[in-house]
Amino acid sequence: MHHADEAGARSRDSEQRRALDAVFDYVDRNAQDFVSCLMAYASHPSISAQNIGIDEVAHLLKERFLAMGMTAEILPTKGNPVVLAQWNRQAGAPTVLLYGHYDVQPPEPLEAWTTPPFEPTIRDGRIFARGIGDNKGQHFAQILAIESHLKVHGKLPCNVIFMLDGEEEVGSPNLPSFVLEHRERLKADLVVTADGSVHPSGTPIVQFGVRGLLNFELHVHGAKRDVHSGNYGGVVPNPAWTLVHLLATMKNAAGEITIDGVYDRVDPPSARELEAIAALPVNVAGLCEELGMTQLDQPQERGYFERLMFHPTLTINGLHSGYGGPGMKTIIPDSAFVKCDMRLVESQTPDEVFALVVKHVARHAPSVEVVRLNSMEPSKTSIESPYTQNIVTAIERAQGKRPLLYPVVGGSLPDYVFTKTLGLPAFLIPYANSDQANHAPNENLSIDCFLKGIKTGAALLACLFDRDVVGSST
Amino acid sequence: MHHADEAGARSRDSEQRRALDAVFDYVDRNAQDFVSCLMAYASHPSISAQNIGIDEVAHLLKERFLAMGMTAEILPTKGNPVVLAQWNRQAGAPTVLLYGHYDVQPPEPLEAWTTPPFEPTIRDGRIFARGIGDNKGQHFAQILAIESHLKVHGKLPCNVIFMLDGEEEVGSPNLPSFVLEHRERLKADLVVTADGSVHPSGTPIVQFGVRGLLNFELHVHGAKRDVHSGNYGGVVPNPAWTLVHLLATMKNAAGEITIDGVYDRVDPPSARELEAIAALPVNVAGLCEELGMTQLDQPQERGYFERLMFHPTLTINGLHSGYGGPGMKTIIPDSAFVKCDMRLVESQTPDEVFALVVKHVARHAPSVEVVRLNSMEPSKTSIESPYTQNIVTAIERAQGKRPLLYPVVGGSLPDYVFTKTLGLPAFLIPYANSDQANHAPNENLSIDCFLKGIKTGAALLACLFDRDVVGSST
Repeated sequence: MHHADEAGARSRDSEQRRALDAVFDYVDRNAQDFVSCLMAYASHPSISAQNIGIDEVAHLLKERFLAMGMTAEILPTKGNPVVLAQWNRQAGAPTVLLYGHYDVQPPEPLEAWTTPPFEPTIRDGRIFARGIGDNKGQHFAQILAIESHLKVHGKLPCNVIFMLDGEEEVGSPNLPSFVLEHRERLKADLVVTADGSVHPSGTPIVQFGVRGLLNFELHVHGAKRDVHSGNYGGVVPNPAWTLVHLLATMKNAAGEITIDGVYDRVDPPSARELEAIAALPVNVAGLCEELGMTQLDQPQERGYFERLMFHPTLTINGLHSGYGGPGMKTIIPDSAFVKCDMRLVESQTPDEVFALVVKHVARHAPSVEVVRLNSMEPSKTSIESPYTQNIVTAIERAQGKRPLLYPVVGGSLPDYVFTKTLGLPAFLIPYANSDQANHAPNENLSIDCFLKGIKTGAALLACLFDRDVVGSST
Repeated sequence: MHHADEAGARSRDSEQRRALDAVFDYVDRNAQDFVSCLMAYASHPSISAQNIGIDEVAHLLKERFLAMGMTAEILPTKGNPVVLAQWNRQAGAPTVLLYGHYDVQPPEPLEAWTTPPFEPTIRDGRIFARGIGDNKGQHFAQILAIESHLKVHGKLPCNVIFMLDGEEEVGSPNLPSFVLEHRERLKADLVVTADGSVHPSGTPIVQFGVRGLLNFELHVHGAKRDVHSGNYGGVVPNPAWTLVHLLATMKNAAGEITIDGVYDRVDPPSARELEAIAALPVNVAGLCEELGMTQLDQPQERGYFERLMFHPTLTINGLHSGYGGPGMKTIIPDSAFVKCDMRLVESQTPDEVFALVVKHVARHAPSVEVVRLNSMEPSKTSIESPYTQNIVTAIERAQGKRPLLYPVVGGSLPDYVFTKTLGLPAFLIPYANSDQANHAPNENLSIDCFLKGIKTGAALLACLFDRDVVGSST
């Protein structure tokens, strides 16, 4: 970089910092009002599983976006509508697509709540309410970040599309078709989702990928009915044994999945990914103690994060055959079944892996029935994305802390609709405290996390597309 | 054999036939009265599982034995008493120990009975009542056989001990200790039990052995609680997989038990046993159709009766871990367990085999807990016993049909108390029709089977110790 360029960059950088500090000041001045607004928002139930309050909350959101000066629409799906808001008055500027969900989990069991789930209450610096952490408090922080920018500067540093899902808590069944149908309107440069929790230490995190998912069942049918294990033992085939022997061909005791071809599309971690996970804190001894285990799963030599990020799994979720009550019942059961899930890593697809499962079962136990259940593609954005440094910088400016970078997390989310369907880099940047108790009674969001979330949202708008930050990311 | 001996034998034989025919005539003349007596006996409930009517029926039996001129006692056990009757006035003659049980199964579900279970009713040549086949009608036939002999001849051809168990339907928990305690009083030359069913074709059968039984459970403990299969998949060990891999080391897909040493004490069938089972009818295609199977269990080349008689089994009775409801639940279960039974063949003992199981589990999966449940020794009397021909002759004389000889049956009964504890040859000679519906509603005994039972009982008393029959058995 030439000296003149450097001087220009420094000048632009300090100008941007001043502009962002003005937004931070605005957030600090309005903190109390923002908390009140969030509590008002969270007082409206929007329970997708119980079909309660969905339309009302979608309209509240639309009104808020319109009042902020954004365009906003309630777009139908086969299920609950998507709220889509937009601000695109920065001609020629890049666009960030923000994703969140306005539906919440059912609040039951109600008697376990200290205060009612839809009467948001502050205790010990936290707001308690259903959906406050997952996800109302997090996308509302992003909304307030936009609002603060507009109030302070009259415009945004980039264009914004805000997409709020009304069915995330029931598995976003209509999100893939919605994104496909509206892909022209959703054209953007990257996707940012504020969901999940920061590290238990309070350190912010950025997640770049998720594992995919494939659920299936194997059903083995034996005799028409349970038969006497003495009168028929050795004569009538036992479906439980058939299932045991089939399963033993699918994964070995050393922890390797032994379905032919399943590792063909599993890539080793990159040098940059290994470097990132080496920096991640983990307390294996503490986890073992918490869960009452003496050691991790096989193979023993595999690193903690390698297990979760770069290896597919084949998990038995449930295995059932015959008698399970007290004492003995001397039968040969009439049937056996197993419920499995596989977590898939980038490059694997549920369709391809399911085909391998079907082929494997056909070769080893052709009479066994294979039933496919839910599935989800894996998703991964390169940790070497040019946006990575901008995101790190934005978080540092908002929170004064360098975030931990997770190349992948072990669970599954439909991020593939962004990375694979829309072809965009996608980043998950959680704002909530790690003990938010989402999906559980007494769900809560710390006010500190909420305000940091607003500032982080504001800093992301300011920094995401800052070429000077991009220039310094190498 | 010399000519003079032959002539003597022929003469003794025709004398014995005449004496037996006189008993048969008596049975025919008193058939209607015998049926009435049986119906009166079966009208008294004696349900061990529900502790109903046990003492009353024990006293009825004692009174009957005393009225016949036998000694009779009600001997206590830790549970229900044993009724022990004796006739030993044939000085120097051998003794047969007859075994049966006076307790019956619970009658429930009552609404499934056409007529009440304790109001014996005749329909279509059958008596319907709880316990009529299992076992009241069968041991009562033996009692009437003794009574008929005594009425016609004033004495019995041999000495008799009659032992009636009051807890067979709850597993005869006190029979082993009772037999051990009273072994001096139970001194006999052989044991005959009338229980079970004749062949569906109506052909009588003699059973020489039963398989033993060993029940155990394996418990695998994982994390303290179910954990998320995404967040922990690859990290937390899965007890269901541990159990699958352990079980796969215990029996292979070819049908062989692979616990070290388990076949060490398994003897191949003798030539005489193979000859006997070659004569036994079996309809494998019919069984497969009835049970909805395409083929028998592995290995395919093993003969039907070899499977049931000469091979131990390792049967999964129940296998359970994790979620079993509809849809999916993406967890790593916190535990897994299996309930197994092993059927043991002669020379194997539950203690030795259980020790092999424990050793195997300790070697392959030391963290897995092994829990022993019930067990029972196998029992086998040689089909080449000198009594075999006498029994065949007795049955032929009573029923005009040659019985089928079963060296072993697949199920388990406590016959070992006779063969191993008392060291006696023991024979199971069922009298009931094969569709007796024992343990089920509408239990029944055909009057024809009952009367044949009385005559068979009488013929056994006459023939069992007949040296001329013994002489012709080679």
